[in-house]
Amino acid sequence: MKRIALLLFAVAAVAVIAASADSGAGRANDEISPIFRVTIPPGYRDWRLISVAHEEGNLNDLRAILGNDVAIKAYREGKLPFPDGTIIARLAWNYVPLEESEKAFGRLQSFVAGAPKNGVQFMVKDAKKYASTGGWGFAQFNDGKPADESAHKTCFPCHATVRARDFVFNRYSP
Amino acid sequence: MKRIALLLFAVAAVAVIAASADSGAGRANDEISPIFRVTIPPGYRDWRLISVAHEEGNLNDLRAILGNDVAIKAYREGKLPFPDGTIIARLAWNYVPLEESEKAFGRLQSFVAGAPKNGVQFMVKDAKKYASTGGWGFAQFNDGKPADESAHKTCFPCHATVRARDFVFNRYSP
Repeated sequence: MKRIALLLFAVAAVAVIAASADSGAGRANDEISPIFRVTIPPGYRDWRLISVAHEEGNLNDLRAILGNDVAIKAYREGKLPFPDGTIIARLAWNYVPLEESEKAFGRLQSFVAGAPKNGVQFMVKDAKKYASTGGWGFAQFNDGKPADESAHKTCFPCHATVRARDFVFNRYSP
Repeated sequence: MKRIALLLFAVAAVAVIAASADSGAGRANDEISPIFRVTIPPGYRDWRLISVAHEEGNLNDLRAILGNDVAIKAYREGKLPFPDGTIIARLAWNYVPLEESEKAFGRLQSFVAGAPKNGVQFMVKDAKKYASTGGWGFAQFNDGKPADESAHKTCFPCHATVRARDFVFNRYSP
């Protein structure tokens, strides 16, 4: 009986050490965005497509806007404001001319998505939690790491320009 | 017993009449692409995203490439050729400057997807059925109606330029 108790104690101790080592590595904390405390939603790359876009200038990317089930349902029903639980993801990639197409046409014709660029962004709807920012929490992750606080301070002022669309730039593309 | 038999006969007769009426309306035939005999795969708008692109020139659109489960699995595993059952969908929309963004930046900055444009295209893999075109059947539908035969004759010669990627232009965007 004493041996079993000792064994259980040892197992528990190892578990505690492992947990603190994990927390010590800061992995969990690293993945929470400043200000809004948003984490990367699991499986977001499998979400359905809302729309696509291209940004010129310094951003110079091709992007896709994906939505979780709550988001897609709300978009398709055309109801505003978006309900709590809506999450919208913005992915972006390098804006790259397609070599084969350029050869075939003898000029620039097709631009495709290259390597990931400009991080991944999320908008999370929680009307109560994010009351001071239109009900939305914002997050940007670069290679899985959250962007800094100053970057997150720019989200809401910009999205405020589309207040009439519940602060969401992208419309649903059928 | 006779009554039941008569009733069954009547039900069968109504079913036959209904089926022929439906076929008479030509709905099924209208939705089959010439040459390759491809139909619009149900639920394709809910498929997962492969990548995004922008075409300049006359096409002048923003597009999304979606794949059915077979396609996404093959892409993620990086295996070529794509297995039978792969379907890749190409959606496209008008290339439209985003008004709010133009105002905010004082110049063109963001381009978003407008109304659907340039139809919806599909590539369907069936190595045996489409042996003479690299194992791929091609289809374009404009507002649900298949494009004509001459349009479908241009698909394979163009895709042949990316024979090394199993005739598929778009790579998977992580």
